[in-house]
Amino acid sequence: MSLSKPRVVSHDRFARIVFGDGRHADFHWIWLRHECALDRHPSTGERTLCSSRIAPDLRAHYAWIDGDALHVRWAGERADRAASRYPLGWLREHAYAPDRDDVEPARTLAELETTLASDEALLPPDWPERLARDGALIARHPTGITGPEHTERLIDQIAAEGLAVITTHFGRIEDLRTDNTTNQNTDQLGYTDAPIDLHTDQPFLDAPPRYQLLHAIRPADEGGESLVSDAHRAARWLAQHDVETYRVLTTTPVRFHRKQKAFERLFTGPILDARSDRFQVRLSPFTMAPHRLPFAEMDAWYRAYARFVRLVEESAVRTTLRAGDVLLYDNHRMLHARTGFRGARWVRGVYFDRGAR
Amino acid sequence: MSLSKPRVVSHDRFARIVFGDGRHADFHWIWLRHECALDRHPSTGERTLCSSRIAPDLRAHYAWIDGDALHVRWAGERADRAASRYPLGWLREHAYAPDRDDVEPARTLAELETTLASDEALLPPDWPERLARDGALIARHPTGITGPEHTERLIDQIAAEGLAVITTHFGRIEDLRTDNTTNQNTDQLGYTDAPIDLHTDQPFLDAPPRYQLLHAIRPADEGGESLVSDAHRAARWLAQHDVETYRVLTTTPVRFHRKQKAFERLFTGPILDARSDRFQVRLSPFTMAPHRLPFAEMDAWYRAYARFVRLVEESAVRTTLRAGDVLLYDNHRMLHARTGFRGARWVRGVYFDRGAR
Repeated sequence: MSLSKPRVVSHDRFARIVFGDGRHADFHWIWLRHECALDRHPSTGERTLCSSRIAPDLRAHYAWIDGDALHVRWAGERADRAASRYPLGWLREHAYAPDRDDVEPARTLAELETTLASDEALLPPDWPERLARDGALIARHPTGITGPEHTERLIDQIAAEGLAVITTHFGRIEDLRTDNTTNQNTDQLGYTDAPIDLHTDQPFLDAPPRYQLLHAIRPADEGGESLVSDAHRAARWLAQHDVETYRVLTTTPVRFHRKQKAFERLFTGPILDARSDRFQVRLSPFTMAPHRLPFAEMDAWYRAYARFVRLVEESAVRTTLRAGDVLLYDNHRMLHARTGFRGARWVRGVYFDRGAR
Repeated sequence: MSLSKPRVVSHDRFARIVFGDGRHADFHWIWLRHECALDRHPSTGERTLCSSRIAPDLRAHYAWIDGDALHVRWAGERADRAASRYPLGWLREHAYAPDRDDVEPARTLAELETTLASDEALLPPDWPERLARDGALIARHPTGITGPEHTERLIDQIAAEGLAVITTHFGRIEDLRTDNTTNQNTDQLGYTDAPIDLHTDQPFLDAPPRYQLLHAIRPADEGGESLVSDAHRAARWLAQHDVETYRVLTTTPVRFHRKQKAFERLFTGPILDARSDRFQVRLSPFTMAPHRLPFAEMDAWYRAYARFVRLVEESAVRTTLRAGDVLLYDNHRMLHARTGFRGARWVRGVYFDRGAR
């Protein structure tokens, strides 16, 4: 037990109080505001503030510990109002989340990317570990120059670790470019210059391909950034912060319906599949069929979905792939997106999975 | 089957389409906005609008049926954008809430109140039926003059229907006035001139008294309006419109803790108790103890509670009781409130319940 000065660490929705003995407890800002002495009747001391009138995203303007009490000045509160004061002993007594662990922060771009040592290697030697640990990796080509002929070398390097190419209704290698005419089923956003929101690929299949390689051949003249975001982390965050939203996303069936010129497939299932032995996210704004939910569940569905999308958007890593760069990610765990662009952007896409299918 | 012109009825969160054969179906505005053609890629036709970017309270500026299609102009949409168009056949095909019944509208003041025929009657003859049907009734004294001595006559009239007075820690008859010194435990908001939010009485008791009579002796010089709102209706509305919120309110335990100079009681249970054989609401901002919920449930709790409070506030009936007026309500079903006031307001309160306790 280490003795040190108590301190407060401010988070978005809550404060963590670290007590003098190293133990800690988390308190939502709304909880603290609701329990404080600012809105009580002067003679009876009764609370006169209903929690329905506190903004759900309220947070402290400033919070500090002075002596044996937490003090909070609230954002948006009149300057002449006293700060709220909470004796540390009272906080200990009412701690509803003692010694809670929080989900680790999202990976940064610096953590996902690696610059290759030579033109020979197309992926870093530890790519399988990185992929398993982080869900995605970005390999930068050292000279920034490479050609489409290296896609096959990449496939060989990945196949050496037991991953086989999965051919889909887009073919074996997808040429993501606006002038694509070689692939079947080019009637989809990937072959336009439009922005594409965060999504997973092929959620309308019973078994979407597990991994995708994106091999950048030519960047756009303008725009065309790539984004990836870890849905598994977002799901764990929700399970720890808003289990109600998590429950809606793991139980509400959604219909992913893809209908193209020469292809049609429908899959019905939840956005988040978090059975104990695996995790799988399916999300795709452009292939969702009209929702068929009971009327009474529709509100909660849109609310939960919006909260999840905001979470993955906030923690997305974004970067512009240069010629030769490789983005490899786990399509069961990560969402990906690209911004709109101008020019002859060319990215090659290949799906992989373990063993035969 | 009656044949008539199809029509659309706009509600706050949804539209009801009444088809030509008299059948109907309800569609949330957010669902309609998400499914419309305004945000689709010009060449592929894919949806480019994520529902997370639609305001949850979006509604139509104007909706109408022309020929065989529903047309919607959206609030906040650019004027040069085409209206959204939904063929009625398509709406029938995708109807997720066909032939749905909605909760009836809240009672109005005119429906709750009745003016007595003479100074002799203190309650209308059908008061037991009104109380059972509406949860509350307001009886207006014809001359607007009556004295505190009539409270006992009211008690007799109510007792004749099998309801007995329940004595509480405030006594047999509560004199709600700022200069009250006769009752025990006067250290509470009821004896001040402060506003009191919608609440139920005595939620901290295992069995809160079922009915309360409020007998107005002297109105305030200014303010002091009375409010009542039907929590049973609000609960049924939630069960039909937002079952997730309903679930949180019927399952999350809350601690009602009343500690006064000479009284202390604690009750732990949900806001809404809707077991099949009964309905009971408990709600009281000023006697809620600090919440002790799992960290991951706190967000959903505040969200659900706020939604419920807004509902009961929106459907509250408000009136100023004059001298002699009587407000009688079911404390297991109705919330009541009063606004702040100035002057020597005097209301007498008596609790009743069926049989011996």
